[in-house]
Amino acid sequence: MPIPHLAVVGGGQLARMMQQPAIALGLRIRLLAEGPDVSAAQVVPDTIVGDHTVLADLEAVTDGAPVVTFDHEHVPPEHLRALADAGHAPRPGPHALLFAQDKQQMRERLTALGVPCPRWAPIASADDVATFGFPLVLKTTRGGYDGKGVWVVREPAGAEPALAAGVPLIAEELVDFRRELSAQVARRPSGDVVAYPVVESRQAGGVCAEVVAPAPDLAPALADEAAALAVRVATELDVVGMLAVELFETADGRILVNELAMRPHNTGHWSIDGAVTSQFENHLRAVLDLPLGATAPRQPWSVMVNVLGGAVTDLEEQLPAVLAAVPDAKVHLYGKAVKPGRKVGHVTVTGDDLETVLTAARRAATLLTDG
Amino acid sequence: MPIPHLAVVGGGQLARMMQQPAIALGLRIRLLAEGPDVSAAQVVPDTIVGDHTVLADLEAVTDGAPVVTFDHEHVPPEHLRALADAGHAPRPGPHALLFAQDKQQMRERLTALGVPCPRWAPIASADDVATFGFPLVLKTTRGGYDGKGVWVVREPAGAEPALAAGVPLIAEELVDFRRELSAQVARRPSGDVVAYPVVESRQAGGVCAEVVAPAPDLAPALADEAAALAVRVATELDVVGMLAVELFETADGRILVNELAMRPHNTGHWSIDGAVTSQFENHLRAVLDLPLGATAPRQPWSVMVNVLGGAVTDLEEQLPAVLAAVPDAKVHLYGKAVKPGRKVGHVTVTGDDLETVLTAARRAATLLTDG
Repeated sequence: MPIPHLAVVGGGQLARMMQQPAIALGLRIRLLAEGPDVSAAQVVPDTIVGDHTVLADLEAVTDGAPVVTFDHEHVPPEHLRALADAGHAPRPGPHALLFAQDKQQMRERLTALGVPCPRWAPIASADDVATFGFPLVLKTTRGGYDGKGVWVVREPAGAEPALAAGVPLIAEELVDFRRELSAQVARRPSGDVVAYPVVESRQAGGVCAEVVAPAPDLAPALADEAAALAVRVATELDVVGMLAVELFETADGRILVNELAMRPHNTGHWSIDGAVTSQFENHLRAVLDLPLGATAPRQPWSVMVNVLGGAVTDLEEQLPAVLAAVPDAKVHLYGKAVKPGRKVGHVTVTGDDLETVLTAARRAATLLTDG
Repeated sequence: MPIPHLAVVGGGQLARMMQQPAIALGLRIRLLAEGPDVSAAQVVPDTIVGDHTVLADLEAVTDGAPVVTFDHEHVPPEHLRALADAGHAPRPGPHALLFAQDKQQMRERLTALGVPCPRWAPIASADDVATFGFPLVLKTTRGGYDGKGVWVVREPAGAEPALAAGVPLIAEELVDFRRELSAQVARRPSGDVVAYPVVESRQAGGVCAEVVAPAPDLAPALADEAAALAVRVATELDVVGMLAVELFETADGRILVNELAMRPHNTGHWSIDGAVTSQFENHLRAVLDLPLGATAPRQPWSVMVNVLGGAVTDLEEQLPAVLAAVPDAKVHLYGKAVKPGRKVGHVTVTGDDLETVLTAARRAATLLTDG
């Protein structure tokens, strides 16, 4: 295989969706995949099967590649440092990725920067929980995602499963929020940064269900504040690539940082069809230190609805019904086996009228989920 | 490799650009490529290297694939019939493809259908040329493209190179045209058909240089006539997949058919970034008998400018300059070595104001062509 422009670690749908703009820009990806036929391995010819926790596999995928980026945030920091020492720039770097890997580190750093966060504290015991006060949210500091590793606790007994898990925890106040927002930016090593429109992210069962771009009825001052906050976090933490700052919009009209993700993010999938430059293209451009693309919406409204594993077990069988029912739906399937609640695809519809777009996108996603 | 949804014959940029919507829709392509690293082979994992004129190679690429489609029109009809007999549907089929492969067959059929064409005649000798009358255009009936196999003849001596070439020829009147248009449709085996907006195609040296979508200042009645004509040709000829009808708009306000192409076509590249459903996605949908996608423009204007091999020999080196100069340019590079005049990429810009969009797209393409 020819020398790759970049290595991508992890064969999930995020890596798969990087391949489309890589094709457009003539960029060659070498992929480290968990198996020969995982989502991204189906579409990247230069794929190595291996384990992202094994340094030798990381060395194999980066061989000849000046840059390495990620489908997920689980590569051990010491391996990232070893790759960097060998001349393969991890983007984002381990010093930045730390704050997406470890929630306590993230809270400490954001608090030190004066970035608005929920009230929080490290938790080591039931006493710490009681001291923090109820209700609260317990989170594992590492490895949680999509509602996993998160416990909403309203009384002392509720903390027991989390404490019994034997993992480092932090507590956060249970925020009285109006809705969840997401502010995304792309940042180059040089420091150039572009911000996407702030979107509304609607969750169900701790998992992103749908995203409306831009966030409807968001006060312009708050939208500006959210975008500026994301730019500042990316800059202060020296993030390279895409950064998603997941935010709470509180009932009393403030924004608080919920989570950080340093990669393309589910709340940015709308940008594939809804923005001039998708988050996947800008991630590639950013990590390769290429000039960033325009983030303007193509249409007034974009709605992205996730396809989560449901009653439909054969997505392909449903494709004719979906495409017939919603001719302007942009359907994205990830080549993954359907399991209950698993993210197996998404649908985006764009247009002038939010209700029309929302109805169409939900209809298409429902046909792929429930039939 | 898993069983493919379809086989694609030919590893050029058209096959490469089919891979992007194939990724989105979860469709697996098996490719027959001219070499291990041609344009589409760089991005399709399941690639077989072989020769599209060798039946055994066609059998290998279609093994297990219910449908086979094409990057070009050069597969011998007898091989297509053999594939069809073996249960691999060629789409378009040989009975349709014939009219894209052979200009005399095309002219005879369109004339029989009453479709407006330039005056034409088969040519076997200098006498036939003189009888037809000057000026005229001589065309090889097979294998011509991008100005190759075409001679503009203004006097008897001008016909000598064409007659000396020893290939079947037809003569066509030299049409006094205002501009060239292209009408594209996608058609399913069931007969369902969708039409794209009619575009203006601007040629330089017999090669498409830029496309404006929709064609500016085109009389609505003429636009409707062009689209209806393309629908009728697709239907009468039983085309499956994309059909491009290249048209002359004459100085006196009529349209005449110039050429037919039964595949995604250069005059439809704008649709990747400028239409709700690209020609590549609708080609895949059509040949797989899936419902067709909306063809509406995403923005009032789209301009596509080809990147033809020029002074710039390393496109990658120019990428930073282009992306910096035109942040809303959509750059598409085909992974092909630069040779003078060769199509190695294209750039599309979309927006509200035609002059702005045209200037931006030309600027981006010029940076990739001339530096």
